[in-house]
Amino acid sequence: MKSYCELSVEELKKIREELLAAYEDAKGKGLKLDMSRGKPSPKQLDLTMDMMETLSSDSDLMTENGFDCRNYGVMDGIPEAKKLIAEMMGVPAENVIVFGNASLPIMYDTISRSMTHGVMGSTPWCKLDKVKFLCPAPGYDRHFAITQHFGIEMITVPMLPTGPDMDMVEKLVSEDAAIKGIWCVPKYSNPQGISYSDETVRRMASLKPAAEDFRIFWDNAYAVHHLYENEQDEILEILSECEKAGNPNMVYEFCSTSKISFAGAGIAAMISSGDNLAFVRKSMTIQTIGYDKINQLRHVRYFKNYDGIKKHMKKQADELRPKFEAVLSRFDKELTGLGIGSWTRPKGGYFISFDAMEGCAKAIVAKCKEAGVVLTGAGATFPYGSDPKDSNIRIAPSYPSAEEMAMATELFILCVKLVSVEKLLESK
Amino acid sequence: MKSYCELSVEELKKIREELLAAYEDAKGKGLKLDMSRGKPSPKQLDLTMDMMETLSSDSDLMTENGFDCRNYGVMDGIPEAKKLIAEMMGVPAENVIVFGNASLPIMYDTISRSMTHGVMGSTPWCKLDKVKFLCPAPGYDRHFAITQHFGIEMITVPMLPTGPDMDMVEKLVSEDAAIKGIWCVPKYSNPQGISYSDETVRRMASLKPAAEDFRIFWDNAYAVHHLYENEQDEILEILSECEKAGNPNMVYEFCSTSKISFAGAGIAAMISSGDNLAFVRKSMTIQTIGYDKINQLRHVRYFKNYDGIKKHMKKQADELRPKFEAVLSRFDKELTGLGIGSWTRPKGGYFISFDAMEGCAKAIVAKCKEAGVVLTGAGATFPYGSDPKDSNIRIAPSYPSAEEMAMATELFILCVKLVSVEKLLESK
Repeated sequence: MKSYCELSVEELKKIREELLAAYEDAKGKGLKLDMSRGKPSPKQLDLTMDMMETLSSDSDLMTENGFDCRNYGVMDGIPEAKKLIAEMMGVPAENVIVFGNASLPIMYDTISRSMTHGVMGSTPWCKLDKVKFLCPAPGYDRHFAITQHFGIEMITVPMLPTGPDMDMVEKLVSEDAAIKGIWCVPKYSNPQGISYSDETVRRMASLKPAAEDFRIFWDNAYAVHHLYENEQDEILEILSECEKAGNPNMVYEFCSTSKISFAGAGIAAMISSGDNLAFVRKSMTIQTIGYDKINQLRHVRYFKNYDGIKKHMKKQADELRPKFEAVLSRFDKELTGLGIGSWTRPKGGYFISFDAMEGCAKAIVAKCKEAGVVLTGAGATFPYGSDPKDSNIRIAPSYPSAEEMAMATELFILCVKLVSVEKLLESK
Repeated sequence: MKSYCELSVEELKKIREELLAAYEDAKGKGLKLDMSRGKPSPKQLDLTMDMMETLSSDSDLMTENGFDCRNYGVMDGIPEAKKLIAEMMGVPAENVIVFGNASLPIMYDTISRSMTHGVMGSTPWCKLDKVKFLCPAPGYDRHFAITQHFGIEMITVPMLPTGPDMDMVEKLVSEDAAIKGIWCVPKYSNPQGISYSDETVRRMASLKPAAEDFRIFWDNAYAVHHLYENEQDEILEILSECEKAGNPNMVYEFCSTSKISFAGAGIAAMISSGDNLAFVRKSMTIQTIGYDKINQLRHVRYFKNYDGIKKHMKKQADELRPKFEAVLSRFDKELTGLGIGSWTRPKGGYFISFDAMEGCAKAIVAKCKEAGVVLTGAGATFPYGSDPKDSNIRIAPSYPSAEEMAMATELFILCVKLVSVEKLLESK
């Protein structure tokens, strides 16, 4: 197809007319679709419904080391849940603390604790004049929301196909002691679906930060969330890489079963060095008598082991894959060669990232909304909700059905074309 | 019986000899009992085991307003859970936020949020030179642990049979703007089982604090935890009392089903004014996408309504009452008139409070431990773990069986007598 950029004003105007007609038509269809959040669909959640039968009124709710899951105690997670998480994440069980129903609150609490109590003896961040975080972007809006909420200054780091721009990360981190952390989604990143290269992970683990209380916030949310059976990304295990590099305490890893079992009724964990976890436990002793151990036990008895999780994730992949393909096949067919957008082809995770022509993202999202398709707000994937190029759009195909995804994508493509044509006409 | 204080040195020495022999004898029995924490017993937890059957693989997990409990969203609790809590606590459902599995983390988070973000626009407490809390004592050690963890200065306020000494509370709160809160367990208080009088609640609601961000932390943990059917304490509802007194935003109330359903796998809530809750929601939006809604729904479907909870609590009372009576009947028989201790007779809650002669509590707890009975550490019921009189001991009868409670109480009485006699001999 001929690139829109090469078209004359007359050609563009003609296309615009056709697109406008098609758009009015689309508006008339009364679509009502939500692609804004990485939410599992009802059908995907149905796959886990038999977990409701895992425990019954005559179940023995004792842990393997003899604790009653129904009672108080066992603050940092039951041993069998630690083992399940450890196996899944490729780490020793003693490096795992199992928390409550989601990993977001663990990350929030980790920042909050650093604000009020510092990190392993460092000055509480709330007593410092300035605290900064590196934010690879496009990235996860809720990470940025936490740092912003605590008044932490965010510095955008560009994402490359191999992960964050490590030249920039190394330079900044080694020069500025106010930089206390970096947000990472290392595997099937949100929203691009990028998995960090081995070199990126090794350079990350070998950072020489100016701040002793600098930590990598390694949100490994999509560790087992592959879409394909034969093409799966694997990344290096960060905890042991940090150890090898002489930085054993430099990373907090987070994970959950929110997108394995139930979104919001899963179990979540933090993985880190013994020293870091000891410091976390000091606050936990004050904050809680223990998280929901019955739900931890329910998960272990249901999945049994990592193999059980893998089998389960294969079923979820069968459910998710057609939705991703519904988007990608249409992008390929309708947008290739037009020069008005590029997109990622993730092999896992929950998102496709679309880069429109500069200055077009907000207008595209608005146009989609007007016709009944809600996308993640343009800019949300950047710190402060502000994409300097107004270009990136996050597409979340998981919630609608494959048929709905096809309809939504067609509308999206229409809006991309329309907004791009108008942009091009403006500049002529 | 003759008071020990009236005995001669000779008489005391003779008694001591007998007690020592009995104590050596008791040590030989190899007791291993834990009365240190207010934990439900396995039999009490068994009463709720059929909750495991409440949801099944073909259950409809939609809330009454059409939200899927299995998915993300509904941050502040499902409507039916709000209603259940509201009915139980005698407040409007719109004043309820339902959180996770226990109330302790809600209280911790409330203090933590005040440290980093202030209270409804006030200066964050971490930016102030000094923050103080009033701590009615004897009180709940975990309350004091939270305030201490955040470096908040604790001021002890004596407990009277009607609740905290309100003359002192009124005076301190109105004079010192550094005082930002007060911890209260208003019903069947921990550890004395005192329920605040109507006058105390009204004076509490009518406080005129110097600090605009002063809040009452109203931990109504034992609201429906009566031991007797015909003798039940009721207290005034604090939220409406604060409203009437022109202080609508002055109170946060906390409650949970930890000691109704499962300790650590219940549901918990915060009750407060619309303005307070709006401020809390601002942080919640950043901290969580929602707590475990499946467990919320499980609780609502199981208990159905407040009547269901009341029926359930009657069964629990039948389980708990004999344990309290095993302690109290022995105290009555063995200690009345000896002048070496006084104790409370709670009509609900989880504790009996025992006041030994001054300077004896630590020694009694140590003696009990030596013979295999673990009590809450002496001093734990006071700020900084330090009881100025070394007199108060918290007895938690809930976990052991009634038979074990009888044995443990007999040992406890023996230790009280022995330590008291030694104390009296020292002073002669």
